[in-house]
Amino acid sequence: MSTLYHYPFCPHSRFVRLALGEYGALVDLVEERFWDRREEFLIMNPAGTTPVFVDQAGPPVPGPAIIAEYLDETRGLLLAERRLLAEDPAERVEIRRLTSWFNDKFYAEVAEPLVSEKIYRRVMPKEAGGGPPDTTVMRAARSNIRYHLAYMTWLVSSRDWLACDRMTYADLAAAAQLSVVDYLGEVPWNENEAVKHWYAKMKSRPSFRPLLAETALGVPASEHYADLDF
Amino acid sequence: MSTLYHYPFCPHSRFVRLALGEYGALVDLVEERFWDRREEFLIMNPAGTTPVFVDQAGPPVPGPAIIAEYLDETRGLLLAERRLLAEDPAERVEIRRLTSWFNDKFYAEVAEPLVSEKIYRRVMPKEAGGGPPDTTVMRAARSNIRYHLAYMTWLVSSRDWLACDRMTYADLAAAAQLSVVDYLGEVPWNENEAVKHWYAKMKSRPSFRPLLAETALGVPASEHYADLDF
Repeated sequence: MSTLYHYPFCPHSRFVRLALGEYGALVDLVEERFWDRREEFLIMNPAGTTPVFVDQAGPPVPGPAIIAEYLDETRGLLLAERRLLAEDPAERVEIRRLTSWFNDKFYAEVAEPLVSEKIYRRVMPKEAGGGPPDTTVMRAARSNIRYHLAYMTWLVSSRDWLACDRMTYADLAAAAQLSVVDYLGEVPWNENEAVKHWYAKMKSRPSFRPLLAETALGVPASEHYADLDF
Repeated sequence: MSTLYHYPFCPHSRFVRLALGEYGALVDLVEERFWDRREEFLIMNPAGTTPVFVDQAGPPVPGPAIIAEYLDETRGLLLAERRLLAEDPAERVEIRRLTSWFNDKFYAEVAEPLVSEKIYRRVMPKEAGGGPPDTTVMRAARSNIRYHLAYMTWLVSSRDWLACDRMTYADLAAAAQLSVVDYLGEVPWNENEAVKHWYAKMKSRPSFRPLLAETALGVPASEHYADLDF
């Protein structure tokens, strides 16, 4: 059995959980409060960040990008035409570019500030950065999401999925990041019909179901969060 | 002929230049002042960041991690036992983990603040973020470099190179990041003999020579920057 050390509202953990769901991989989920900087966890990943995937007797694999490569190398061919990466070098570039766009750029500019201010800082002790939310940070993230949604609209208007004509890691990364922001009610869906349509397809996948059932203590989900026809 | 859009003191560009040097690849270097947000460049890489690699008729490949994967997939086997990634899955994880450690974490905590404040802000127009350096930001980076050097000391004391028993992408990433910080005279070498010894090995590689000849307008190199026996 494999193990994923994750945090429920960590978008990178959600990305890996979606990928594992698509691979049909059975995995033990261990919730890691990364801000506790637990020694055994730091030995697995000195960067101290979630997620970390441990594959049976394999080495600990840290971070969404490295886990995605590892899963493709160890399980990718099993998915055949549903593979989340591609064979063709140009398609591989585009899938990796957009996966990083969402896991790195969207995360830094939108998801991380919102989830940190609205969820993490409520549960973290003061010494680890806990405290009331910083509204300036949230305002910047709310402004940033607009250009990201405009870019996504452009992508899904010219292709069936974000990176090419089938679902790939890029879609999982975007959906994982958005799911956390949507939980917080911070996605202006009305202005972005094409993205909403794409997200509804993602939400209806069986791999998505566990994410829609999660709740953060003291922070209720937005009304439409778990609704497949939102 | 391939082309690399780079900026001389961008550590990620330097990482790719070192890799291309190790592959013995002939490449046209085009200096990209990324803060100008040139339209043709944004079409190649909507994130607007250097480096971008264009391989003959291939697609534009953006960013150090994606370029590294692309080069390994298209040229890796030619290097045989000098390959910069590995065959073994556990070694691949460790090489990618440390490559990301330096290209992402060291960059964000040390190299980016120092190079931004001391070089970029001098040459950027005010609208793009130019201006006098922020000493608070530099102070934090100077404090952060100490724990990074301590970690590197631990790595090179237990292995011949950073990730395993031969030179890999991890060494190129670390050396590229350090090279920019060293140019600025911000590496406390005296306290880190083992890292100094490893860096001297890196510096003496032919792939490193072009970097040692570069100068930033108005910011002279530290005394020992180009010295192989520093």
